[in-house]
Amino acid sequence: MQNSYSHSLSNHKQLTQKSVNRCFNGEQHYYSHESTSTKTSMTFSIYLPDEALAGRRCPAILYLSGLTCNADNVTHKGHFQQKCSELGMILIAPDTSPRSSEDSDVPNDERYFVGQGASYYVDATQAPWSDNFNMQSYIVDELYDLLRSEFPIDSIGITGHSMGGHGALLLGFKFPSKFVSVSALSPVCAASESAWGQAAYTEYFGDDKSLWVQADAAQMIEKVGQQYASILVDQGAADNFLAEGQLQTSKLQDACAKAEQPLTLRYQAGHDHSYYFIQTVINDHIEHHWHMAQMS
Amino acid sequence: MQNSYSHSLSNHKQLTQKSVNRCFNGEQHYYSHESTSTKTSMTFSIYLPDEALAGRRCPAILYLSGLTCNADNVTHKGHFQQKCSELGMILIAPDTSPRSSEDSDVPNDERYFVGQGASYYVDATQAPWSDNFNMQSYIVDELYDLLRSEFPIDSIGITGHSMGGHGALLLGFKFPSKFVSVSALSPVCAASESAWGQAAYTEYFGDDKSLWVQADAAQMIEKVGQQYASILVDQGAADNFLAEGQLQTSKLQDACAKAEQPLTLRYQAGHDHSYYFIQTVINDHIEHHWHMAQMS
Repeated sequence: MQNSYSHSLSNHKQLTQKSVNRCFNGEQHYYSHESTSTKTSMTFSIYLPDEALAGRRCPAILYLSGLTCNADNVTHKGHFQQKCSELGMILIAPDTSPRSSEDSDVPNDERYFVGQGASYYVDATQAPWSDNFNMQSYIVDELYDLLRSEFPIDSIGITGHSMGGHGALLLGFKFPSKFVSVSALSPVCAASESAWGQAAYTEYFGDDKSLWVQADAAQMIEKVGQQYASILVDQGAADNFLAEGQLQTSKLQDACAKAEQPLTLRYQAGHDHSYYFIQTVINDHIEHHWHMAQMS
Repeated sequence: MQNSYSHSLSNHKQLTQKSVNRCFNGEQHYYSHESTSTKTSMTFSIYLPDEALAGRRCPAILYLSGLTCNADNVTHKGHFQQKCSELGMILIAPDTSPRSSEDSDVPNDERYFVGQGASYYVDATQAPWSDNFNMQSYIVDELYDLLRSEFPIDSIGITGHSMGGHGALLLGFKFPSKFVSVSALSPVCAASESAWGQAAYTEYFGDDKSLWVQADAAQMIEKVGQQYASILVDQGAADNFLAEGQLQTSKLQDACAKAEQPLTLRYQAGHDHSYYFIQTVINDHIEHHWHMAQMS
Protein backbone atom coordinates (compact mmCIF):
# COMPACT_ATOMS: atom_id res chain seq x y z
CA MET A 1 0.00 0.00 0.00
CA GLN A 2 2.79 2.39 0.81
CA ASN A 3 4.37 1.97 -2.57
CA SER A 4 1.14 2.52 -4.40
CA TYR A 5 0.57 5.65 -2.34
CA SER A 6 4.05 7.00 -2.90
CA HIS A 7 3.39 6.57 -6.57
CA SER A 8 0.02 8.28 -6.45
CA LEU A 9 1.28 11.24 -4.38
CA SER A 10 3.44 12.38 -7.25
CA ASN A 11 0.96 11.26 -9.87
CA HIS A 12 -2.57 12.16 -8.84
CA LYS A 13 -4.86 10.99 -11.61
CA GLN A 14 -7.97 12.85 -10.53
CA LEU A 15 -6.41 15.91 -8.92
CA THR A 16 -4.67 19.08 -10.09
CA GLN A 17 -2.08 20.27 -7.61
CA LYS A 18 -2.38 24.05 -7.14
CA SER A 19 0.34 24.74 -4.54
CA VAL A 20 2.80 23.17 -2.12
CA ASN A 21 4.36 25.00 0.86
CA ARG A 22 6.63 23.53 3.51
CA CYS A 23 5.00 24.15 6.92
CA PHE A 24 6.39 22.81 10.21
CA ASN A 25 7.43 19.17 9.60
CA GLY A 26 5.10 18.68 6.67
CA GLU A 27 3.57 20.40 3.66
CA GLN A 28 0.42 22.42 3.04
CA HIS A 29 -1.02 21.38 -0.35
CA TYR A 30 -3.96 22.69 -2.39
CA TYR A 31 -5.78 20.63 -5.04
CA SER A 32 -8.68 21.11 -7.41
CA HIS A 33 -10.73 18.45 -9.17
CA GLU A 34 -13.88 18.09 -11.26
CA SER A 35 -16.74 17.00 -9.01
CA THR A 36 -19.57 14.84 -10.28
CA SER A 37 -21.64 15.71 -7.17
CA THR A 38 -21.58 19.47 -7.69
CA LYS A 39 -20.89 19.52 -11.45
CA THR A 40 -18.19 22.13 -10.78
CA SER A 41 -14.50 22.26 -10.09
CA MET A 42 -13.90 21.97 -6.33
CA THR A 43 -10.82 23.06 -4.37
CA PHE A 44 -9.54 21.70 -1.07
CA SER A 45 -6.44 22.15 1.07
CA ILE A 46 -4.67 19.24 2.73
CA TYR A 47 -1.91 19.36 5.34
CA LEU A 48 0.39 16.35 5.04
CA PRO A 49 2.87 15.68 7.86
CA ASP A 50 6.22 14.16 6.94
CA GLU A 51 4.96 10.71 7.97
CA ALA A 52 2.30 10.95 5.25
CA LEU A 53 4.74 12.39 2.72
CA ALA A 54 6.90 9.32 3.38
CA GLY A 55 3.92 7.12 2.55
CA ARG A 56 2.88 6.07 6.05
CA ARG A 57 -0.87 5.97 6.69
CA CYS A 58 -1.95 8.71 9.10
CA PRO A 59 -5.21 9.57 10.83
CA ALA A 60 -7.04 12.40 9.07
CA ILE A 61 -9.47 15.14 10.06
CA LEU A 62 -12.03 16.55 7.65
CA TYR A 63 -12.62 20.19 8.64
CA LEU A 64 -15.86 21.78 7.35
CA SER A 65 -15.81 25.58 7.31
CA GLY A 66 -18.64 28.00 8.03
CA LEU A 67 -20.75 30.46 6.03
CA THR A 68 -18.89 32.64 3.48
CA CYS A 69 -15.65 30.65 3.85
CA ASN A 70 -13.67 28.65 1.33
CA ALA A 71 -10.67 26.37 1.83
CA ASP A 72 -8.41 29.35 2.55
CA ASN A 73 -9.90 30.68 5.79
CA VAL A 74 -9.04 27.87 8.17
CA THR A 75 -5.87 27.04 6.25
CA HIS A 76 -4.58 30.59 6.79
CA LYS A 77 -6.17 31.47 10.12
CA GLY A 78 -6.98 28.18 11.88
CA HIS A 79 -3.43 27.50 13.14
CA PHE A 80 -3.85 23.73 12.92
CA GLN A 81 -0.58 22.93 11.18
CA GLN A 82 1.70 22.86 14.23
CA LYS A 83 -0.36 20.31 16.14
CA CYS A 84 -0.94 18.18 13.03
CA SER A 85 2.81 18.21 12.45
CA GLU A 86 3.50 17.19 16.06
CA LEU A 87 0.99 14.33 16.08
CA GLY A 88 1.41 13.20 12.47
CA MET A 89 -2.13 13.98 11.39
CA ILE A 90 -3.59 14.96 8.03
CA LEU A 91 -6.18 17.78 7.88
CA ILE A 92 -8.38 18.41 4.85
CA ALA A 93 -10.34 21.65 4.39
CA PRO A 94 -12.85 21.56 1.50
CA ASP A 95 -14.78 24.51 0.14
CA THR A 96 -18.21 25.19 1.68
CA SER A 97 -20.20 25.00 -1.55
CA PRO A 98 -20.00 24.83 -5.33
CA ARG A 99 -18.99 28.11 -6.98
CA SER A 100 -19.68 29.77 -10.32
CA SER A 101 -16.75 29.90 -12.72
CA GLU A 102 -16.11 30.51 -16.40
CA ASP A 103 -17.21 26.92 -17.02
CA SER A 104 -20.18 26.64 -14.67
CA ASP A 105 -23.09 28.86 -13.76
CA VAL A 106 -24.11 27.93 -10.22
CA PRO A 107 -27.20 29.32 -8.47
CA ASN A 108 -26.60 31.97 -5.83
CA ASP A 109 -28.47 34.15 -3.35
CA GLU A 110 -27.70 37.62 -2.08
CA ARG A 111 -28.15 36.45 1.53
CA TYR A 112 -24.76 35.20 2.81
CA PHE A 113 -26.44 32.30 4.64
CA VAL A 114 -27.98 30.84 1.44
CA GLY A 115 -26.27 29.77 -1.77
CA GLN A 116 -22.60 30.01 -2.69
CA GLY A 117 -20.52 29.99 0.51
CA ALA A 118 -23.39 28.25 2.34
CA SER A 119 -24.72 24.70 1.46
CA TYR A 120 -25.14 23.25 4.99
CA TYR A 121 -23.48 20.07 3.63
CA VAL A 122 -26.83 18.64 2.48
CA ASP A 123 -28.15 17.41 -0.87
CA ALA A 124 -30.73 19.95 -2.06
CA THR A 125 -33.90 18.51 -3.58
CA GLN A 126 -35.38 21.66 -5.10
CA ALA A 127 -34.58 23.57 -8.30
CA PRO A 128 -32.42 25.47 -8.99
CA TRP A 129 -30.22 24.18 -6.12
CA SER A 130 -30.48 20.44 -6.65
CA ASP A 131 -28.23 20.48 -9.72
CA ASN A 132 -25.12 21.61 -7.84
CA PHE A 133 -25.82 21.83 -4.12
CA ASN A 134 -25.09 18.21 -3.25
CA MET A 135 -22.45 18.77 -0.63
CA GLN A 136 -23.50 15.78 1.51
CA SER A 137 -22.73 13.44 -1.39
CA TYR A 138 -19.62 15.43 -2.19
CA ILE A 139 -18.21 15.14 1.35
CA VAL A 140 -19.22 11.63 2.46
CA ASP A 141 -18.94 9.85 -0.90
CA GLU A 142 -16.97 11.63 -3.60
CA LEU A 143 -14.32 13.55 -1.65
CA TYR A 144 -14.16 10.81 0.99
CA ASP A 145 -13.32 8.15 -1.60
CA LEU A 146 -11.00 10.46 -3.51
CA LEU A 147 -8.99 11.25 -0.37
CA ARG A 148 -8.72 7.57 0.53
CA SER A 149 -7.50 6.65 -2.94
CA GLU A 150 -5.06 9.54 -3.39
CA PHE A 151 -3.52 9.99 0.08
CA PRO A 152 -2.17 7.62 2.79
CA ILE A 153 -5.15 8.00 5.09
CA ASP A 154 -5.84 5.64 7.97
CA SER A 155 -9.04 6.66 9.78
CA ILE A 156 -11.07 9.87 9.23
CA GLY A 157 -12.60 12.11 11.88
CA ILE A 158 -14.90 15.05 11.13
CA THR A 159 -15.06 18.52 12.63
CA GLY A 160 -16.09 22.02 11.60
CA HIS A 161 -17.01 25.54 12.62
CA SER A 162 -20.47 27.15 12.72
CA MET A 163 -22.35 25.92 9.61
CA GLY A 164 -19.44 23.50 9.25
CA GLY A 165 -19.91 22.38 12.85
CA HIS A 166 -23.49 21.55 11.90
CA GLY A 167 -22.09 19.61 8.94
CA ALA A 168 -19.66 17.68 11.15
CA LEU A 169 -22.37 16.73 13.67
CA LEU A 170 -24.95 15.91 10.99
CA LEU A 171 -22.70 13.84 8.74
CA GLY A 172 -20.87 12.27 11.67
CA PHE A 173 -24.12 10.87 13.08
CA LYS A 174 -25.83 10.16 9.74
CA PHE A 175 -22.82 8.19 8.46
CA PRO A 176 -21.10 6.86 11.59
CA SER A 177 -19.45 3.99 9.70
CA LYS A 178 -17.40 6.55 7.78
CA PHE A 179 -15.92 8.45 10.70
CA VAL A 180 -14.07 7.44 13.87
CA SER A 181 -14.55 10.74 15.69
CA VAL A 182 -16.66 13.89 15.73
CA SER A 183 -16.13 17.33 17.20
CA ALA A 184 -17.41 20.84 16.48
CA LEU A 185 -16.55 24.48 17.11
CA SER A 186 -19.43 26.94 17.63
CA PRO A 187 -21.77 24.64 15.66
CA VAL A 188 -25.23 25.47 14.30
CA CYS A 189 -26.78 22.66 16.37
CA ALA A 190 -30.37 22.76 15.13
CA ALA A 191 -30.32 24.22 11.61
CA SER A 192 -34.05 23.68 11.09
CA GLU A 193 -34.73 25.95 14.08
CA SER A 194 -32.28 28.76 13.29
CA ALA A 195 -33.12 31.71 11.03
CA TRP A 196 -30.07 30.93 8.85
CA GLY A 197 -31.03 27.28 8.39
CA GLN A 198 -34.70 28.01 7.84
CA ALA A 199 -33.89 30.44 5.04
CA ALA A 200 -31.54 27.93 3.41
CA TYR A 201 -33.77 24.86 3.82
CA THR A 202 -36.75 26.74 2.38
CA GLU A 203 -34.61 27.14 -0.74
CA TYR A 204 -32.92 23.72 -0.76
CA PHE A 205 -35.87 21.52 0.38
CA GLY A 206 -39.04 23.62 0.08
CA ASP A 207 -41.92 22.85 2.42
CA ASP A 208 -41.26 19.12 2.98
CA LYS A 209 -40.38 19.32 6.68
CA SER A 210 -39.38 15.64 6.79
CA LEU A 211 -36.32 16.68 4.76
CA TRP A 212 -35.56 19.46 7.24
CA VAL A 213 -35.56 16.96 10.12
CA GLN A 214 -33.03 14.77 8.29
CA ALA A 215 -30.84 17.86 7.92
CA ASP A 216 -30.93 18.89 11.58
CA ALA A 217 -27.94 17.80 13.67
CA ALA A 218 -29.69 17.68 17.05
CA GLN A 219 -32.62 15.71 15.65
CA MET A 220 -30.25 13.33 13.85
CA ILE A 221 -28.34 12.63 17.09
CA GLU A 222 -31.57 12.03 18.99
CA LYS A 223 -32.79 9.68 16.26
CA VAL A 224 -29.70 7.51 15.84
CA GLY A 225 -28.45 7.45 19.44
CA GLN A 226 -24.92 7.06 20.71
CA GLN A 227 -22.31 6.49 17.99
CA TYR A 228 -19.02 7.68 19.53
CA ALA A 229 -17.24 7.18 22.87
CA SER A 230 -17.42 10.95 23.25
CA ILE A 231 -17.74 14.11 21.17
CA LEU A 232 -16.09 17.45 21.89
CA VAL A 233 -17.83 20.80 21.31
CA ASP A 234 -16.39 24.24 22.09
CA GLN A 235 -18.56 27.35 22.12
CA GLY A 236 -17.53 30.95 22.77
CA ALA A 237 -19.62 32.32 25.62
CA ALA A 238 -19.54 35.83 24.11
CA ASP A 239 -20.52 34.67 20.61
CA ASN A 240 -23.12 37.10 19.19
CA PHE A 241 -24.63 34.34 17.02
CA LEU A 242 -25.28 32.28 20.16
CA ALA A 243 -27.17 35.20 21.69
CA GLU A 244 -29.03 35.66 18.39
CA GLY A 245 -30.35 32.08 18.47
CA GLN A 246 -28.53 30.82 15.37
CA LEU A 247 -26.56 28.14 17.22
CA GLN A 248 -29.07 26.59 19.69
CA THR A 249 -26.36 24.86 21.68
CA SER A 250 -28.79 23.76 24.39
CA LYS A 251 -30.63 21.62 21.80
CA LEU A 252 -27.41 19.70 21.16
CA GLN A 253 -27.05 19.15 24.89
CA ASP A 254 -30.64 17.88 25.14
CA ALA A 255 -30.26 15.61 22.12
CA CYS A 256 -27.03 14.08 23.44
CA ALA A 257 -28.66 13.49 26.83
CA LYS A 258 -31.61 11.71 25.19
CA ALA A 259 -29.30 9.75 22.89
CA GLU A 260 -26.97 8.86 25.78
CA GLN A 261 -24.18 10.24 23.59
CA PRO A 262 -21.33 11.44 25.87
CA LEU A 263 -20.69 15.12 25.11
CA THR A 264 -17.92 17.36 26.37
CA LEU A 265 -19.38 20.85 25.88
CA ARG A 266 -17.18 23.78 26.90
CA TYR A 267 -18.35 27.39 27.00
CA GLN A 268 -15.19 29.50 26.67
CA ALA A 269 -15.49 32.76 28.60
CA GLY A 270 -15.11 35.95 26.59
CA HIS A 271 -14.64 34.20 23.24
CA ASP A 272 -16.60 35.16 20.13
CA HIS A 273 -17.36 33.42 16.78
CA SER A 274 -14.14 34.43 15.00
CA TYR A 275 -11.00 32.64 13.86
CA TYR A 276 -9.34 34.02 17.00
CA PHE A 277 -11.60 31.58 18.84
CA ILE A 278 -10.95 28.74 16.39
CA GLN A 279 -7.16 29.03 16.79
CA THR A 280 -7.59 29.07 20.58
CA VAL A 281 -9.32 25.68 20.76
CA ILE A 282 -8.25 23.84 17.60
CA ASN A 283 -5.31 22.07 19.24
CA ASP A 284 -7.68 20.38 21.69
CA HIS A 285 -9.85 19.23 18.79
CA ILE A 286 -6.90 17.79 16.90
CA GLU A 287 -5.86 15.93 20.05
CA HIS A 288 -9.43 14.66 20.51
CA HIS A 289 -9.44 13.19 17.00
CA TRP A 290 -5.93 11.81 17.48
CA HIS A 291 -6.91 9.97 20.68
CA MET A 292 -10.08 8.60 19.10
CA ALA A 293 -8.06 7.41 16.10
CA GLN A 294 -5.68 5.54 18.43
CA MET A 295 -8.67 3.74 19.95
CA SER A 296 -10.26 2.84 16.60
CA MET B 1 1.96 52.63 37.38
CA GLN B 2 -0.52 49.81 37.12
CA ASN B 3 -3.42 52.01 38.03
CA SER B 4 -2.51 54.68 35.52
CA TYR B 5 -2.24 51.99 32.87
CA SER B 6 -5.53 50.37 33.74
CA HIS B 7 -7.06 53.76 33.38
CA SER B 8 -5.44 54.43 30.02
CA LEU B 9 -6.34 51.02 28.59
CA SER B 10 -10.02 51.87 28.69
CA ASN B 11 -9.44 55.52 27.88
CA HIS B 12 -6.83 55.85 25.14
CA LYS B 13 -6.45 59.53 24.43
CA GLN B 14 -4.51 59.25 21.18
CA LEU B 15 -5.94 55.99 19.84
CA THR B 16 -9.19 54.81 18.26
CA GLN B 17 -9.96 51.21 19.11
CA LYS B 18 -11.11 49.35 15.96
CA SER B 19 -11.68 45.81 17.29
CA VAL B 20 -11.19 43.48 20.26
CA ASN B 21 -11.25 39.68 20.03
CA ARG B 22 -10.55 37.21 22.80
CA CYS B 23 -7.68 34.94 21.67
CA PHE B 24 -6.04 32.29 23.88
CA ASN B 25 -5.53 33.87 27.34
CA GLY B 26 -5.51 37.41 26.05
CA GLU B 27 -7.04 39.73 23.47
CA GLN B 28 -6.17 40.75 19.92
CA HIS B 29 -6.79 44.50 19.55
CA TYR B 30 -6.62 46.86 16.55
CA TYR B 31 -6.10 50.62 16.84
CA SER B 32 -5.76 53.54 14.48
CA HIS B 33 -4.29 56.97 15.19
CA GLU B 34 -3.27 60.15 13.40
CA SER B 35 0.47 60.08 12.76
CA THR B 36 2.56 63.25 12.65
CA SER B 37 5.43 61.32 11.02
CA THR B 38 3.44 60.09 8.02
CA LYS B 39 0.70 62.74 8.03
CA THR B 40 -1.84 59.94 7.64
CA SER B 41 -3.96 57.73 9.82
CA MET B 42 -1.99 54.60 10.78
CA THR B 43 -3.34 51.23 11.94
CA PHE B 44 -1.63 48.64 14.12
CA SER B 45 -2.63 45.42 15.83
CA ILE B 46 -1.57 44.56 19.36
CA TYR B 47 -1.89 41.23 21.17
CA LEU B 48 -2.30 41.74 24.91
CA PRO B 49 -2.00 38.70 27.21
CA ASP B 50 -4.15 38.63 30.34
CA GLU B 51 -1.19 39.84 32.42
CA ALA B 52 -1.13 43.05 30.37
CA LEU B 53 -4.92 43.37 30.45
CA ALA B 54 -4.65 43.20 34.25
CA GLY B 55 -2.20 46.10 34.13
CA ARG B 56 1.09 44.25 34.68
CA ARG B 57 4.02 45.41 32.56
CA CYS B 58 5.01 42.79 29.98
CA PRO B 59 7.87 42.48 27.51
CA ALA B 60 6.81 43.46 23.98
CA ILE B 61 7.85 42.58 20.44
CA LEU B 62 7.51 45.00 17.56
CA TYR B 63 6.93 42.92 14.39
CA LEU B 64 7.63 44.67 11.07
CA SER B 65 5.92 43.07 8.08
CA GLY B 66 7.19 42.69 4.53
CA LEU B 67 6.35 44.16 1.12
CA THR B 68 2.61 44.44 0.26
CA CYS B 69 1.53 43.59 3.83
CA ASN B 70 -0.44 45.58 6.34
CA ALA B 71 -1.16 44.84 10.01
CA ASP B 72 -3.55 42.02 9.07
CA ASN B 73 -1.18 39.56 7.44
CA VAL B 74 0.88 38.47 10.41
CA THR B 75 -2.03 38.97 12.79
CA HIS B 76 -4.11 36.47 10.81
CA LYS B 77 -1.43 34.15 9.47
CA GLY B 78 1.60 34.50 11.76
CA HIS B 79 0.27 32.24 14.54
CA PHE B 80 2.06 34.21 17.26
CA GLN B 81 -0.82 34.51 19.69
CA GLN B 82 -0.51 31.13 21.41
CA LYS B 83 3.14 31.58 22.39
CA CYS B 84 2.58 35.21 23.43
CA SER B 85 -0.30 34.02 25.60
CA GLU B 86 1.85 31.29 27.18
CA LEU B 87 4.79 33.60 27.94
CA GLY B 88 2.83 36.75 28.74
CA MET B 89 4.22 38.82 25.89
CA ILE B 90 2.76 41.69 23.91
CA LEU B 91 3.19 41.75 20.11
CA ILE B 92 2.57 44.85 18.00
CA ALA B 93 2.22 44.68 14.19
CA PRO B 94 2.20 48.11 12.49
CA ASP B 95 1.39 48.77 8.85
CA THR B 96 4.33 48.74 6.40
CA SER B 97 3.80 52.27 5.04
CA PRO B 98 1.47 55.26 4.93
CA ARG B 99 -1.63 54.72 2.77
CA SER B 100 -3.88 56.96 0.72
CA SER B 101 -7.34 57.55 2.14
CA GLU B 102 -10.25 59.94 1.68
CA ASP B 103 -8.33 62.43 3.80
CA SER B 104 -4.80 61.98 2.49
CA ASP B 105 -3.26 61.58 -0.94
CA VAL B 106 -0.05 59.60 -0.47
CA PRO B 107 2.47 58.96 -3.27
CA ASN B 108 2.50 55.47 -4.74
CA ASP B 109 4.31 53.39 -7.36
CA GLU B 110 3.03 50.57 -9.52
CA ARG B 111 6.02 48.40 -8.50
CA TYR B 112 5.04 46.44 -5.36
CA PHE B 113 8.52 46.96 -3.88
CA VAL B 114 8.29 50.78 -3.96
CA GLY B 115 5.68 53.06 -2.40
CA GLN B 116 2.56 52.08 -0.49
CA GLY B 117 3.08 48.64 1.10
CA ALA B 118 6.86 49.16 0.93
CA SER B 119 8.78 51.95 2.85
CA TYR B 120 11.82 49.96 4.13
CA TYR B 121 11.25 51.67 7.49
CA VAL B 122 13.44 54.64 6.50
CA ASP B 123 12.84 58.40 6.37
CA ALA B 124 12.74 59.39 2.69
CA THR B 125 14.61 62.59 1.77
CA GLN B 126 13.31 63.08 -1.77
CA ALA B 127 10.03 64.46 -3.11
CA PRO B 128 7.35 63.27 -3.39
CA TRP B 129 8.16 60.60 -0.79
CA SER B 130 9.63 62.73 2.01
CA ASP B 131 6.26 64.18 3.02
CA ASN B 132 4.81 60.85 4.17
CA PHE B 133 7.42 58.08 3.94
CA ASN B 134 9.03 58.63 7.35
CA MET B 135 8.57 55.16 8.73
CA GLN B 136 11.86 55.18 10.67
CA SER B 137 10.63 58.15 12.72
CA TYR B 138 7.19 56.59 12.93
CA ILE B 139 8.49 53.29 14.36
CA VAL B 140 11.37 54.33 16.65
CA ASP B 141 9.92 57.63 17.91
CA GLU B 142 6.21 58.16 17.42
CA LEU B 143 4.77 54.65 17.67
CA TYR B 144 7.43 53.63 20.19
CA ASP B 145 6.47 56.46 22.57
CA LEU B 146 2.76 55.99 21.95
CA LEU B 147 2.95 52.28 22.82
CA ARG B 148 4.91 53.02 25.99
CA SER B 149 2.40 55.63 27.12
CA GLU B 150 -0.75 53.70 26.24
CA PHE B 151 0.10 50.09 27.15
CA PRO B 152 1.85 48.37 30.10
CA ILE B 153 5.06 47.66 28.22
CA ASP B 154 8.28 46.68 29.97
CA SER B 155 11.08 46.20 27.40
CA ILE B 156 10.71 46.16 23.60
CA GLY B 157 12.35 43.77 21.13
CA ILE B 158 12.18 44.13 17.36
CA THR B 159 11.68 41.52 14.63
CA GLY B 160 10.23 41.31 11.15
CA HIS B 161 9.93 39.40 7.90
CA SER B 162 11.61 40.14 4.56
CA MET B 163 11.56 43.95 4.10
CA GLY B 164 10.42 43.99 7.74
CA GLY B 165 13.39 41.82 8.69
CA HIS B 166 15.58 44.49 7.09
CA GLY B 167 13.70 47.05 9.21
CA ALA B 168 14.25 45.06 12.40
CA LEU B 169 17.99 44.64 11.78
CA LEU B 170 18.47 48.23 10.61
CA LEU B 171 16.52 49.93 13.40
CA GLY B 172 17.72 47.46 16.04
CA PHE B 173 21.35 48.36 15.33
CA LYS B 174 20.80 52.05 14.54
CA PHE B 175 18.87 52.61 17.80
CA PRO B 176 20.17 49.93 20.19
CA SER B 177 19.19 51.92 23.28
CA LYS B 178 15.54 51.49 22.29
CA PHE B 179 15.48 47.71 21.94
CA VAL B 180 16.56 44.82 24.17
CA SER B 181 16.55 42.17 21.43
CA VAL B 182 16.63 41.73 17.65
CA SER B 183 15.64 38.86 15.38
CA ALA B 184 14.56 38.51 11.76
CA LEU B 185 12.78 36.08 9.44
CA SER B 186 13.96 35.89 5.81
CA PRO B 187 15.35 39.44 6.04
CA VAL B 188 16.49 41.66 3.19
CA CYS B 189 19.99 41.89 4.69
CA ALA B 190 21.60 44.40 2.34
CA ALA B 191 18.84 46.55 0.87
CA SER B 192 21.26 48.80 -1.00
CA GLU B 193 22.54 45.77 -2.92
CA SER B 194 19.18 44.12 -3.74
CA ALA B 195 17.11 45.04 -6.80
CA TRP B 196 14.10 45.77 -4.58
CA GLY B 197 16.03 48.11 -2.29
CA GLN B 198 17.88 49.83 -5.13
CA ALA B 199 14.59 50.67 -6.84
CA ALA B 200 13.12 52.01 -3.61
CA TYR B 201 16.20 53.94 -2.48
CA THR B 202 16.53 55.61 -5.88
CA GLU B 203 13.05 56.98 -5.22
CA TYR B 204 13.38 57.71 -1.50
CA PHE B 205 16.98 59.01 -1.42
CA GLY B 206 18.02 59.73 -5.00
CA ASP B 207 21.69 59.47 -5.91
CA ASP B 208 23.21 60.31 -2.49
CA LYS B 209 24.76 56.92 -1.76
CA SER B 210 25.77 57.96 1.78
CA LEU B 211 22.04 57.80 2.60
CA TRP B 212 21.82 54.32 1.07
CA VAL B 213 24.62 53.09 3.34
CA GLN B 214 22.78 54.36 6.42
CA ALA B 215 19.74 52.41 5.27
CA ASP B 216 21.53 49.09 4.73
CA ALA B 217 21.26 46.61 7.60
CA ALA B 218 24.52 44.72 6.95
CA GLN B 219 26.50 47.96 6.63
CA MET B 220 24.89 49.38 9.78
CA ILE B 221 25.83 46.27 11.78
CA GLU B 222 29.41 46.41 10.50
CA LYS B 223 29.60 50.12 11.37
CA VAL B 224 28.21 50.02 14.92
CA GLY B 225 29.57 46.64 16.05
CA GLN B 226 28.11 44.27 18.61
CA GLN B 227 24.99 45.54 20.36
CA TYR B 228 23.18 42.37 21.55
CA ALA B 229 24.21 39.18 23.33
CA SER B 230 22.93 37.33 20.26
CA ILE B 231 20.54 37.79 17.36
CA LEU B 232 18.39 35.08 15.76
CA VAL B 233 17.75 34.87 12.00
CA ASP B 234 15.76 32.15 10.22
CA GLN B 235 15.89 31.76 6.45
CA GLY B 236 14.02 29.28 4.27
CA ALA B 237 16.53 27.33 2.21
CA ALA B 238 14.05 27.00 -0.68
CA ASP B 239 13.12 30.71 -0.69
CA ASN B 240 12.95 31.93 -4.31
CA PHE B 241 13.86 35.48 -3.23
CA LEU B 242 17.07 34.15 -1.67
CA ALA B 243 18.00 32.51 -4.98
CA GLU B 244 17.07 35.74 -6.79
CA GLY B 245 19.56 37.78 -4.73
CA GLN B 246 17.02 39.98 -2.93
CA LEU B 247 17.98 38.79 0.55
CA GLN B 248 21.82 38.60 0.51
CA THR B 249 21.94 36.56 3.70
CA SER B 250 25.69 35.94 3.39
CA LYS B 251 26.29 39.69 3.72
CA LEU B 252 24.59 39.62 7.12
CA GLN B 253 26.82 36.75 8.14
CA ASP B 254 29.93 38.65 7.00
CA ALA B 255 28.84 41.83 8.75
CA CYS B 256 28.13 40.05 12.04
CA ALA B 257 31.52 38.32 11.83
CA LYS B 258 33.31 41.65 11.33
CA ALA B 259 31.21 43.32 14.05
CA GLU B 260 31.77 40.38 16.43
CA GLN B 261 27.99 40.32 16.80
CA PRO B 262 26.93 36.76 17.77
CA LEU B 263 24.43 35.52 15.17
CA THR B 264 22.34 32.36 15.17
CA LEU B 265 21.53 31.89 11.48
CA ARG B 266 19.39 28.88 10.57
CA TYR B 267 18.65 27.79 7.01
CA GLN B 268 15.42 25.78 7.21
CA ALA B 269 15.36 22.99 4.62
CA GLY B 270 12.51 23.05 2.13
CA HIS B 271 10.95 26.25 3.47
CA ASP B 272 9.98 29.18 1.22
CA HIS B 273 9.24 32.89 1.84
CA SER B 274 5.56 32.48 2.80
CA TYR B 275 3.56 32.78 5.99
CA TYR B 276 3.72 28.98 6.20
CA PHE B 277 7.41 29.55 6.95
CA ILE B 278 6.73 32.41 9.36
CA GLN B 279 4.31 30.33 11.43
CA THR B 280 6.84 27.49 11.51
CA VAL B 281 9.60 29.54 13.18
CA ILE B 282 7.78 32.35 14.97
CA ASN B 283 7.55 30.53 18.32
CA ASP B 284 11.34 30.34 18.46
CA HIS B 285 11.58 34.08 17.80
CA ILE B 286 9.08 34.91 20.53
CA GLU B 287 11.08 32.73 22.93
CA HIS B 288 14.32 34.45 21.84
CA HIS B 289 12.85 37.87 22.67
CA TRP B 290 11.39 36.56 25.92
CA HIS B 291 14.75 35.23 27.10
CA MET B 292 16.54 38.44 26.13
CA ALA B 293 13.88 40.46 28.00
CA GLN B 294 14.49 38.36 31.14
CA MET B 295 18.21 39.22 30.91
CA SER B 296 17.64 42.94 30.35
